[in-house]
Amino acid sequence: LESERRLTPPLIECVPNFSEGRDLARVDAIEQAIREVPGVLILHRTSDSDHNRSVITFAGRADAVVEAAVRATARAAELIDLNRHEGVHPRLGVLDVLPFVPLAGATLENCIELARRAGQRIWNELRIPVYFYQAAALRPDRTHLEDVRRGQFEGIREAVFANPEKRPDLGGPALHPTAGAVIVGARKFLIAYNINLRTTDVSIAKSIARKIRASSGGLPAVKALGLPLASRGLVQVSMNLTDFEQTPIHVVFSEVSRLAAEYGVEVEESELIGLMPRKALEMAAAGLLKLSNWDSQKVIENRLEALLGG
Amino acid sequence: LESERRLTPPLIECVPNFSEGRDLARVDAIEQAIREVPGVLILHRTSDSDHNRSVITFAGRADAVVEAAVRATARAAELIDLNRHEGVHPRLGVLDVLPFVPLAGATLENCIELARRAGQRIWNELRIPVYFYQAAALRPDRTHLEDVRRGQFEGIREAVFANPEKRPDLGGPALHPTAGAVIVGARKFLIAYNINLRTTDVSIAKSIARKIRASSGGLPAVKALGLPLASRGLVQVSMNLTDFEQTPIHVVFSEVSRLAAEYGVEVEESELIGLMPRKALEMAAAGLLKLSNWDSQKVIENRLEALLGG
Repeated sequence: LESERRLTPPLIECVPNFSEGRDLARVDAIEQAIREVPGVLILHRTSDSDHNRSVITFAGRADAVVEAAVRATARAAELIDLNRHEGVHPRLGVLDVLPFVPLAGATLENCIELARRAGQRIWNELRIPVYFYQAAALRPDRTHLEDVRRGQFEGIREAVFANPEKRPDLGGPALHPTAGAVIVGARKFLIAYNINLRTTDVSIAKSIARKIRASSGGLPAVKALGLPLASRGLVQVSMNLTDFEQTPIHVVFSEVSRLAAEYGVEVEESELIGLMPRKALEMAAAGLLKLSNWDSQKVIENRLEALLGG
Repeated sequence: LESERRLTPPLIECVPNFSEGRDLARVDAIEQAIREVPGVLILHRTSDSDHNRSVITFAGRADAVVEAAVRATARAAELIDLNRHEGVHPRLGVLDVLPFVPLAGATLENCIELARRAGQRIWNELRIPVYFYQAAALRPDRTHLEDVRRGQFEGIREAVFANPEKRPDLGGPALHPTAGAVIVGARKFLIAYNINLRTTDVSIAKSIARKIRASSGGLPAVKALGLPLASRGLVQVSMNLTDFEQTPIHVVFSEVSRLAAEYGVEVEESELIGLMPRKALEMAAAGLLKLSNWDSQKVIENRLEALLGG
């Protein structure tokens, strides 16, 4: 029955970033520590040798995901010494960043609570100090990961003594001598989503990207670039949607379609890079079909899960 | 753990129609027989006193659904005598029609197999003869429910002796003296779906309904009527989609939108009557977003279920 337990919502995704991307035997060992937790599934893994960094994406029920995150941190601390780590990507810890992400049946608030639990265990059991970032931040100046990590391992391990502002949220003030510190957080699912347009004029994609991106006053929680897809004779508006509940995928699709039409250009297709949460797809369908009184409990399987779950 | 077992796909819906719609204590007792099976959930129940008929919609895993269907038939046979049953709706059995419908992770082929198992148990254990219809039909002249039921209880119990063509697929030739016979089948999910148009001219809704309905050469597996919604100042194209995989909901939406636009009329909204399967909503989102290389395994929760289920 163990395998069936795992299916019950709420489900949580966890996306730890490790400071090892060259010695893949070590990455295997960290992955194995995650795999050993019943009820956890590895969804994706990627390593970059220039960054000397790996990302393992896994998911499962809350308790199992927290357990796997702590075990992964312990294994990384056994295997990696930050004093010997080189790579072009900044890092503060052997397990550098540990975000918890809500999937079906879970909320961002659930993930903040899980971040706290994982952080507390990492300090209590492993004596590795913890910083909380993004939705789990305890201080507004720690919302952005880049701000927390500025100075990285070599700079911050000195700064914590001179500057109380730089000290960890849990533990410290000294960083762990070989493992550094873990930056634990909660955030929404990030959807990588592209829309391809039936034109070869990349200036149109760039102009649309500029109009829709949040940083230039466009749609909230949308990052966008215009790119050529020369081999296909198309151009692409390439996007990251950092909060699909605030700006749903169909709002992005409709807005890009509308702006393209102003240039007399049609949408050829859209594409998803990687995975998307079920809720994002449901919101898109309900939005584009103009379904009145939409409620995800109108999906029969969701209703079954709600009646049976919990 | 029992409650968690129930969530694992494949999931099956079962929609038995009973020949009792007046004595609600009897309908309660039949519902209770279904409820007593672990892993089965009642989704909906409706009774009509003119038809003297009730429909109970329930769902769960395959084995549980078959068990509940057999128990419901047994309870109906204990409580109802067709010789004393009157109502405007034709019927052949106390449990008159027993369709199995695929939900997440299940196929129509799975449901044909379940119909056979349920039918075999109904004859073996309850000695009530069985006819198979629609996708579970053993003979082409039994595909349509109306053809199987023509003559209903009073006519068919005589006809089986004179006309071998009318005999049950399992058991008989005589029908059960009080319970008649059960018509067991497999079919796809029926989606009741309406699109409301921003006009008061019902002739536009009627014209669109005529163009899209399958019976007049429109979209396959679509039944459609045009109706006024006088109190709202709108008109409605009211539809049944009998095979959302053949004609997906977004194809219907796009076609009705396009035809309405030819009359200079806009779609106000669409509405779902009752529930819809998850797959129908996923197909709609993928279709309307023009997602290339769509695959339901791009939904993270579907991927988790596929990796963990089975």
